[in-house]
Amino acid sequence: MVKILIFGLTLLLSVQLFAQDRTFDLMPVPRAITPTQERFRIKKSFSIGIIGDPGNRVYKEATRSLRRLDDRMGFFFKQGIITSGDSLETADLLIYVERPAELNLYEDESYELKSDSEQVTIDAITDLGAIRGLETLLQLVSVDNEGYYFPGVEISDEPRFPWRGYYFPGVEISDEPRFPWRGLLLDITLHWMPIDVVKRTLDCMASVKMNVLHLHLTEDQMFGIESKVYPRLHQVGSDGNYYTQEEMREVIAYADQRGIRIVPEFDLPGHCTSWLKAYPELASVKRDYELQRYFGVFDPALDVTKDYTYVFLDSLFTEMAQLFPDEYFHIGGDENTGKDWARNPDIKAYMEKKGMTTYRELETEFISRVQPILEKNGKKMMGWDEILRPGVSHDIMIQSWRGTESLVEAAKNGYTSLLSTGYYIDLIQPTDYHYLVDPIPANTDLTTEQQKLIVGGEATMWTEHVTPETVDSRIWPRTAAIAERLWSSDTVRNVDDMYRRIDRISLLLEGLGSTHIKNKAMLMRRLADSYDTKALEVLVDVIEPLKIYERNAGDTMYTVFSPYTKIADVATPDQKVAREFRKNVTAWCSTQDSIPEIRILANLKIWKNNNSAFRELIKHSPVLSEAAGLSENLSRIAAIGLQAFGYIKNGIAPPVGWKEKNLEITEKAKEQGGRCDLQIVTAIEELIETAAR
Amino acid sequence: MVKILIFGLTLLLSVQLFAQDRTFDLMPVPRAITPTQERFRIKKSFSIGIIGDPGNRVYKEATRSLRRLDDRMGFFFKQGIITSGDSLETADLLIYVERPAELNLYEDESYELKSDSEQVTIDAITDLGAIRGLETLLQLVSVDNEGYYFPGVEISDEPRFPWRGYYFPGVEISDEPRFPWRGLLLDITLHWMPIDVVKRTLDCMASVKMNVLHLHLTEDQMFGIESKVYPRLHQVGSDGNYYTQEEMREVIAYADQRGIRIVPEFDLPGHCTSWLKAYPELASVKRDYELQRYFGVFDPALDVTKDYTYVFLDSLFTEMAQLFPDEYFHIGGDENTGKDWARNPDIKAYMEKKGMTTYRELETEFISRVQPILEKNGKKMMGWDEILRPGVSHDIMIQSWRGTESLVEAAKNGYTSLLSTGYYIDLIQPTDYHYLVDPIPANTDLTTEQQKLIVGGEATMWTEHVTPETVDSRIWPRTAAIAERLWSSDTVRNVDDMYRRIDRISLLLEGLGSTHIKNKAMLMRRLADSYDTKALEVLVDVIEPLKIYERNAGDTMYTVFSPYTKIADVATPDQKVAREFRKNVTAWCSTQDSIPEIRILANLKIWKNNNSAFRELIKHSPVLSEAAGLSENLSRIAAIGLQAFGYIKNGIAPPVGWKEKNLEITEKAKEQGGRCDLQIVTAIEELIETAAR
Repeated sequence: MVKILIFGLTLLLSVQLFAQDRTFDLMPVPRAITPTQERFRIKKSFSIGIIGDPGNRVYKEATRSLRRLDDRMGFFFKQGIITSGDSLETADLLIYVERPAELNLYEDESYELKSDSEQVTIDAITDLGAIRGLETLLQLVSVDNEGYYFPGVEISDEPRFPWRGYYFPGVEISDEPRFPWRGLLLDITLHWMPIDVVKRTLDCMASVKMNVLHLHLTEDQMFGIESKVYPRLHQVGSDGNYYTQEEMREVIAYADQRGIRIVPEFDLPGHCTSWLKAYPELASVKRDYELQRYFGVFDPALDVTKDYTYVFLDSLFTEMAQLFPDEYFHIGGDENTGKDWARNPDIKAYMEKKGMTTYRELETEFISRVQPILEKNGKKMMGWDEILRPGVSHDIMIQSWRGTESLVEAAKNGYTSLLSTGYYIDLIQPTDYHYLVDPIPANTDLTTEQQKLIVGGEATMWTEHVTPETVDSRIWPRTAAIAERLWSSDTVRNVDDMYRRIDRISLLLEGLGSTHIKNKAMLMRRLADSYDTKALEVLVDVIEPLKIYERNAGDTMYTVFSPYTKIADVATPDQKVAREFRKNVTAWCSTQDSIPEIRILANLKIWKNNNSAFRELIKHSPVLSEAAGLSENLSRIAAIGLQAFGYIKNGIAPPVGWKEKNLEITEKAKEQGGRCDLQIVTAIEELIETAAR
Repeated sequence: MVKILIFGLTLLLSVQLFAQDRTFDLMPVPRAITPTQERFRIKKSFSIGIIGDPGNRVYKEATRSLRRLDDRMGFFFKQGIITSGDSLETADLLIYVERPAELNLYEDESYELKSDSEQVTIDAITDLGAIRGLETLLQLVSVDNEGYYFPGVEISDEPRFPWRGYYFPGVEISDEPRFPWRGLLLDITLHWMPIDVVKRTLDCMASVKMNVLHLHLTEDQMFGIESKVYPRLHQVGSDGNYYTQEEMREVIAYADQRGIRIVPEFDLPGHCTSWLKAYPELASVKRDYELQRYFGVFDPALDVTKDYTYVFLDSLFTEMAQLFPDEYFHIGGDENTGKDWARNPDIKAYMEKKGMTTYRELETEFISRVQPILEKNGKKMMGWDEILRPGVSHDIMIQSWRGTESLVEAAKNGYTSLLSTGYYIDLIQPTDYHYLVDPIPANTDLTTEQQKLIVGGEATMWTEHVTPETVDSRIWPRTAAIAERLWSSDTVRNVDDMYRRIDRISLLLEGLGSTHIKNKAMLMRRLADSYDTKALEVLVDVIEPLKIYERNAGDTMYTVFSPYTKIADVATPDQKVAREFRKNVTAWCSTQDSIPEIRILANLKIWKNNNSAFRELIKHSPVLSEAAGLSENLSRIAAIGLQAFGYIKNGIAPPVGWKEKNLEITEKAKEQGGRCDLQIVTAIEELIETAAR
């Protein structure tokens, strides 16, 4: 055990040294880095000074950065709250800010970070730039072999204090984002997300330099924000979970502090059952509206042909425009089925009178009637692909969930847009898939001017199948890779280096409050009803929840009341153990190198023997029964893998029919269990094929 | 590995079966339990019905209980939100409530819980009783060998669904609390505790039937609640962290829902630096007041001789009396040094004029002038020992932090009181110490009537040395043992059975949201800056933070800005590994049984070898240097333990001087490192002494 640990650490340290010649451990990678050989040694006396015309944000963020540093290094820094009095030009970290930022799209976020053995400096035009620079600095913390102190052979009292070894490497970094809109959509309606989830998400977003949190606030399932002008919206339109305006102002201030804009979404004219439960007079069809408990696309829709609907929206949006300071206001616009409009003869008559032949035309009218309401309130309208309609003013923002084609179309027609297709992190796809999706692909035929209209992208965290306990494991660490795609140069595309760095960033995100690592262990303890979760962990390390929309077959399995505490909730996307096994198998099948060989053998032996322990766990906690098949399959195909390994290693041909018989077994092992599937089956197949070659 | 796991599980299951003849896994133990041989099998169709005159609370709590059950068993129960429509007398769980409770001291909390193979019933006079009964039921969930399903020899698709095996054991329980006041003081001023900490604390308190959360809201360090009449109190008297009145109303409703009262504390006439920073005119001494950043007892005090002080308190307390509905209102009263009063000639003159010779007399006057303000607002005054003064009205509640003598004195003088001495969970003492402290010791000379004046007790979570990341590990699971002391019969005092059950309750508390287990792993990852924390874990398992007031030597080491992320913060009270090692050593030294022997040997070998791995970890994360001595000591004394073990096992006498030499080493190994100390030194000494006997 001890030897393995030492080996692991040595490996880790050497990888780090190697990496420091290239991208350090930074994520997102800055525009330009020049490393030097110098080191700025961090000491107990470390201090921060701020000069220029910085405004308030940067004092608070510098104070928070100092505490975050101290939380990792434990020096007991003397500086408490940093104020305008802290302006010594000889401070260890000197921050210069030219002016406070306006928190708007296109605001300057650039910064220069320099460090040598004497001082670290961050220079920025705006405080936003300085705040981005502070996050870079926090990721630069390094350790060298000055970093330890051991007592002598005699038992000593207290080790030397303060300890040495922490430093910032000498660098010159010049950085700015590629795209000005680097967002995350957090849906708080399909499962309620309390304020503390939002706050920790903002902390983590800031640490990877994201700058827009898009809150999806209303849905068929609930209306999630207090309205004082139409209080039935949150009172009747929810089960009691909604943000009060006071809470939302606090969230907005918290985000502003971190240089993050909050964009609210009020999804219309469909997705509005909760509105109609509260105010049935707005509905296209008279019926008893109850909050939707299933997930999917439903028929209820606003009656957009009535003038009073716009009177209502005018009052509500005027109220909300005052609450949310951002210049963008998202009105959804997606997935209206049109069926409830078809059921209403008045609406049909209205359309006939206006010469409309499709429901899309009526939607277009809705959008053109809503836009002036927003405009009057100083807001730009934003919506999903569907709002891109002939004749709609150019002052809107299109968010694409349908594909890059929509972006190209929008840009060619002179509309600003951003990409979400490819960034649907709720669909459990691997990190590298998201990482390589570019809002402006290399082969684009857009002109430079048109390209500028594509302002960035947004990861989307739809919450059908997550709760506050599991949401972080769906957002992090994968979203850090999307953050890098939107910040860093389009040439930063090395998947191996991304995986190396994201492993490191994942630990830092946990340190900032994300629960994506620790809650996995907690969920396993609850699921196994035991402190000893080893057998479960072995299984969970090689399974992933069903991807895309497979988990909720036919949209009928899950409701808002379902338990999200089972093996598919414990399992996380892009399992590292499975990913590395696949990689090792591919490498070994072609090279038969000893390093992947040792690891493959270790994996296969553990898996082969795991099923008997897992069965004992099921006896103790029957809820695990649904994974009995997965566990049995894992052990069976691991045994096959060991056979194949033996044939390859010893250069012996397997008997006739061996390959076919075992490929049948691996084929069956691809079936789901507990809404998860095994992630190592293709690698076992590769071993079988190689053995039988 | 697999064999060890199976062994562990078998042991676990057999212990559970054994236990079910006695106290099941219930904590607190009910007043009376009669088990039967029947089992109520839980199925997917499980449903809850409510009859009687239940009020609102129990519908919400029954719904929450249904979700909590489903979260553990994963059945996808069909029932959503339970309403007055759910009143079928044939429901699987039928709850009868005679009337909704008034949430006051002395309200009825009794219930009867019966289960057989057909139905479970909870009968209660008040909804509070029913809510307590639901918590008992949730702790009764059991599993038997009907509980698993394995696929056949062929690979199967999906295991049978729903799985079997979950049941409620047949019981007749008749239960009610011994004391009506079962509280927890949560200090939110020495370190700020956000709303989500308070909410998860309330969830956990409810699960062990505690019924008072006492919030210590004001201190030298901050004023933690919004005042609309004197807004400078929270604006100037804090760094921006305070509960808004809206948030506090939400917390009060959340607590009420769980049958928990919220008692606010406004600590005066000392402990008020934050008040004086906001309103210096209230101070006894004119000086520039800044928020206190150190911890301890300080001189600033209200000038209680000025009439305008009482005008101020009248307005403030009238406002707060409206915000906090509970009948009790805590005004602190503790630890006023009197020094600032002595520094003010006007106060001296006032005292002379009134014929007062001690500052205690002035405090008595203060208390008698505040009490009518509270009384007028319908509140009973509550305070620490210090407020028990001659002539103070009998309608007050004394909270003892000085000892049971105060309780006896209070009771003999006709005052109601509750115990906190012995329940100071911030002092890192072991669970059994707190568990055996009884508000009314067996040898009391109080009459039955006087005993009734002792209404219970309160665990106190002072937060000098904890943050939201670590607070749960100081509260839980130890407070569950205090909850049992205050609920269960005084004859329930079996420490072994308490430790057996609290291990189980600890897992359930984590499932409810407490971070006491999962954050330990997170803190270790951050401290080691690595996913591999094995060597750190081995050390942390046998150390505890310095106890009582030793950690913060001279009150000068820590401030509110210090890092609380170090080894003393990772380490938790009452380490199980160390406790069981000590127990095993004592058992083995007298019996030389093989079970403790195997465990002792396994422990000693791991510890002996751990230091080299720990040194590697220090190289990677220098902040661990402060524990280098502890780690070296652990390995050295483990090696000595192994030597001693060999002598004992082989019946060989150690050489002359061996004992003395090694006892010197163990003596040195008692020294602290990183504000922690090793918890297995006495056991090694026991091995040395036994070997040398």
